[in-house]
Amino acid sequence: MRSHYCGAVRASDIGNIVTLCGWAHRRRDHGGVIFIDLRDRDGTVQVVIDPDTPEAFKIAEDVRAEFVLKVVGKVRARPEGTENANLPTGMVEVLTQTLEVLNPSLTPPFQLDDENLSENVRLQYRYLDLRRPAMQANMVLRYRVAKLMRDYLDQQGFIDVETPMLTRSTPEGARDYLVPSRVHDGMFYALPQSPQLFKQLLMVAGYDRYFQIVKCFRDEDLRADRQPEFTQVDLEMSFVEENDVMTLVEGMIRETFMKAKGIELAEPFPRMAYAEAMARFGSDKPDMRVTLELTEVTDAVKDVAFKVFSGPANDPNGRVAALRVPGGAALTRGEIDGYTEFVKIYGAKGLAYIKVNDASQLNEAGLQSPIVKNLNEAALKAIIERTGAQSGDLVFFGADKAKVVNDAIGALRLKIGHEKGHVDGRAWAPLWVVDFPMFEYNEDEKRWDALHHPFTSPKDGHEELLASDPGQALSKAYDMVLNGWEVGGGSIRIHREAIQEKVFAALNIGEEERRNKFGFLLDALQFGAPPHGGLAFGLDRLVTLMTGAESIRDVIAFPKTQRAACLMTDAPNAVDEKQLRELHIRLRNAVPGAAA
Amino acid sequence: MRSHYCGAVRASDIGNIVTLCGWAHRRRDHGGVIFIDLRDRDGTVQVVIDPDTPEAFKIAEDVRAEFVLKVVGKVRARPEGTENANLPTGMVEVLTQTLEVLNPSLTPPFQLDDENLSENVRLQYRYLDLRRPAMQANMVLRYRVAKLMRDYLDQQGFIDVETPMLTRSTPEGARDYLVPSRVHDGMFYALPQSPQLFKQLLMVAGYDRYFQIVKCFRDEDLRADRQPEFTQVDLEMSFVEENDVMTLVEGMIRETFMKAKGIELAEPFPRMAYAEAMARFGSDKPDMRVTLELTEVTDAVKDVAFKVFSGPANDPNGRVAALRVPGGAALTRGEIDGYTEFVKIYGAKGLAYIKVNDASQLNEAGLQSPIVKNLNEAALKAIIERTGAQSGDLVFFGADKAKVVNDAIGALRLKIGHEKGHVDGRAWAPLWVVDFPMFEYNEDEKRWDALHHPFTSPKDGHEELLASDPGQALSKAYDMVLNGWEVGGGSIRIHREAIQEKVFAALNIGEEERRNKFGFLLDALQFGAPPHGGLAFGLDRLVTLMTGAESIRDVIAFPKTQRAACLMTDAPNAVDEKQLRELHIRLRNAVPGAAA
Repeated sequence: MRSHYCGAVRASDIGNIVTLCGWAHRRRDHGGVIFIDLRDRDGTVQVVIDPDTPEAFKIAEDVRAEFVLKVVGKVRARPEGTENANLPTGMVEVLTQTLEVLNPSLTPPFQLDDENLSENVRLQYRYLDLRRPAMQANMVLRYRVAKLMRDYLDQQGFIDVETPMLTRSTPEGARDYLVPSRVHDGMFYALPQSPQLFKQLLMVAGYDRYFQIVKCFRDEDLRADRQPEFTQVDLEMSFVEENDVMTLVEGMIRETFMKAKGIELAEPFPRMAYAEAMARFGSDKPDMRVTLELTEVTDAVKDVAFKVFSGPANDPNGRVAALRVPGGAALTRGEIDGYTEFVKIYGAKGLAYIKVNDASQLNEAGLQSPIVKNLNEAALKAIIERTGAQSGDLVFFGADKAKVVNDAIGALRLKIGHEKGHVDGRAWAPLWVVDFPMFEYNEDEKRWDALHHPFTSPKDGHEELLASDPGQALSKAYDMVLNGWEVGGGSIRIHREAIQEKVFAALNIGEEERRNKFGFLLDALQFGAPPHGGLAFGLDRLVTLMTGAESIRDVIAFPKTQRAACLMTDAPNAVDEKQLRELHIRLRNAVPGAAA
Repeated sequence: MRSHYCGAVRASDIGNIVTLCGWAHRRRDHGGVIFIDLRDRDGTVQVVIDPDTPEAFKIAEDVRAEFVLKVVGKVRARPEGTENANLPTGMVEVLTQTLEVLNPSLTPPFQLDDENLSENVRLQYRYLDLRRPAMQANMVLRYRVAKLMRDYLDQQGFIDVETPMLTRSTPEGARDYLVPSRVHDGMFYALPQSPQLFKQLLMVAGYDRYFQIVKCFRDEDLRADRQPEFTQVDLEMSFVEENDVMTLVEGMIRETFMKAKGIELAEPFPRMAYAEAMARFGSDKPDMRVTLELTEVTDAVKDVAFKVFSGPANDPNGRVAALRVPGGAALTRGEIDGYTEFVKIYGAKGLAYIKVNDASQLNEAGLQSPIVKNLNEAALKAIIERTGAQSGDLVFFGADKAKVVNDAIGALRLKIGHEKGHVDGRAWAPLWVVDFPMFEYNEDEKRWDALHHPFTSPKDGHEELLASDPGQALSKAYDMVLNGWEVGGGSIRIHREAIQEKVFAALNIGEEERRNKFGFLLDALQFGAPPHGGLAFGLDRLVTLMTGAESIRDVIAFPKTQRAACLMTDAPNAVDEKQLRELHIRLRNAVPGAAA
């Protein structure tokens, strides 16, 4: 139907007849001539309709925004002074010979170039929202990223193997989406939270290097950047150790960023132990662009009179940490109140601080704060020395259970860092976090939970700790962090059944539960499972980061709202009673107008 | 962990030390030396363990089938006379220096090279079944095919856009898999039967060329070659006509077959109208390798005394067709009885035939059959002339509703063709079937159904027939057929709302149903939908054809049984009452041991 994409017409085409198809992006009349910016996926080109072609001119007079047009015309140079150097087609225009309306359009409910649309309107008319050049660029980038990863993995000998969507409920923590079975009365499939077990089975089956770009599902309450269905770049390798996996996927990310966006990432990515990340940044996914750090003062405040500090300092699960803000003495009362409210989101009960008016005076003269009088000089000395605070700085404190301190002061570090410019100027700061603990203690249920998942291998030499001191056992897990986002995570898996049994024992997963939930994996481990490990990336997040989009919804063609609904198709929706009968289920609550 | 894949060791490595990891495929003792065929995804290599390395030898004595091993050794030429030219590694062996058991294995429940396994055992221990080299080759080929298609489509400017898995029940005929919503009480998502509506919306959104290799779901009773979830290669293009789509995807298939398997397919693929395919082969997916054809004799037997023929011949929905089998007079009574039983599967009430003893005598002397006396000479003459029957041939007849005749005699044509060698010797016979009717009449419901789907465009000039004579309206649909399998199908879609409304009218889909089911598509068509069309391939089928596998289950890593169950994970399974409560549903029938 066409000879060129609209965005592809160039000065080298001058004098040629071209056939173009596209949308009327803008139409204007100027000096008795009609100009139409004709748009397609590739870009826009200026089309001129002259009264000398009266048939085309008559048609053009009725063209409105978003009409679908077919234009045959001659490419010519734009008149001198009207060129647009910002547009790839800006040196030329197409003088129309014939014009055809392939389809008219109603007036769209919004202007495509309106930057202030409500997200609900955008999602309801998603097919129009997706027409906007910025959204098209996002979708093209998303495709390009996935393709680059596929090509990289192909060159590395990986093969894409499809794993089932209708599978068995997996116990990886989140809530499953269930699918009632028609054939098996009372039974349900679950949509996969990840292909974890299947990819491990593929390693047992000798597939050596597996990958998949695959939809995964979690029926969780949605936060800003979660979707009920999301896309993972999932991979697994046999006969590897941690470093093999990390080196390979790091190469994939580096190549993808370079080829898709011309971004050069550090080589190699720095690595940091989990314990160090928590100590210095209060987070296992620290944004390394922020120059602020947490300082440990727990040991220094054990004996102070100030109970808010000494209490947590003497609690084995407590922590007292300081956050030095250079120049922070200039913060206003209102700003500090705002930060105090902010840390409450993370469970902190307050936010103590010291304004350092004169770092050489370790008393109320030099250090301005109601808490100073309740801290002894040794404590104040440790605080000032360890934080390196200078006159004019401010030091915030978190004192609580370690988890609360890490969450609250870690978040405060990010907030102040970005708001007040305590950043190192790098656009991209990748990091591997390694040496995670095997387990974290679940205070509510008084038991150990797997920090990653129960198939994660302990570090060599830590096998005995699984029983004797689970909290000290470290794992062969690794997370890739980029600008404070966890973009990927994985581990070396357990390939020996004996170790797997020890981990289940530490997690207090009994024999029956093991057989019931993982029986086939435990069986498989007995039939010659190779050493193996892998990783999964969140594609939505990674592309969101690369585009600089505000939400992952901007890099997903047809996303759901935070209430897990599609505003365009109106899903989920009510279904026929007949369908429910076939699936052997009924609604628990009567729905108006529907049989029970 | 390794320096080489097992299957990659070559004569050029002789003298080098290699490190290999893999599975003990076979172990044998010979002359005081232990030989292990070490296997990985890439192949096997012979490993020799000599008593001169007593530590390794001691370990090797305990190695059993499927143990996972790590071998360090020196590559050497095999002793003269023991080379194996059939194996890429057959000129060399590896003399072990150190041997490590990375993981032992229980004795597998079956031998990997057992060709006579029950499918149930294979599916239960799928991770072992998938270890078999033939299955690994299938999975690698499947990956290669998908990758070649992706690369081809990428070069043609297509982009992969992911469409939702949790969507709205679509009315494309088959039963949906439903997913109860937790957030929206009483509401359900449906898993997509195809991304049909979404890909059309992507064209409305200006994406121009879309593709996706995507899971689709149909909750249908499973036949031999159906799975609840299956994989489509799905694509759509804007500003195209039928020929554009067909030419492009034909190129994709040709390139894929050539690059994946070295198979050269005809260029271009022949094209045949639906009407001709039904007339000559009784099928819209004829296997063109079979040389037998149906011959129309309906008009010639209208006046015969034999009511079995004259009845259908005078029924406007009836058909009488002949199938000439060259040399068929040699068929035994038992064979013919077998065929008679066979056609009953397709609804035929019997199978009339004439043995042609002497084609020059149009009577009971030349034509041996109880029906001859009830056919007049003109009819016999037409039958013999039109079929071209020669002495020694046999002519079968189908006489019934046209659908029954086509199904039964079409199937008989295939059966006899393949069993008796009436084939033209081609390994691959691709075909486009085109010019499908828009509608087929649903006798049960006394209404017209869409033959493809309700978004299929009528042929130019057939728009008026939609109302006046729906049965005569042809569509811009096309199916790709390969060796009698429909491997792909598609159409040019309706892009103008007015035509879409006419089609809905012909299908007797009322205003409310239109709005309710397709409202968002109808809306989208009003906002500047471009002319567009596309196609979807069944990847499972295509790869099954390419591998020559017996079942699509042999090209799917983790398939379901015909009862839609996974024997390995035991899915579907019972779930907790708590899960059902959260989803606002209850079981219709009490399950022993579970709350209602």
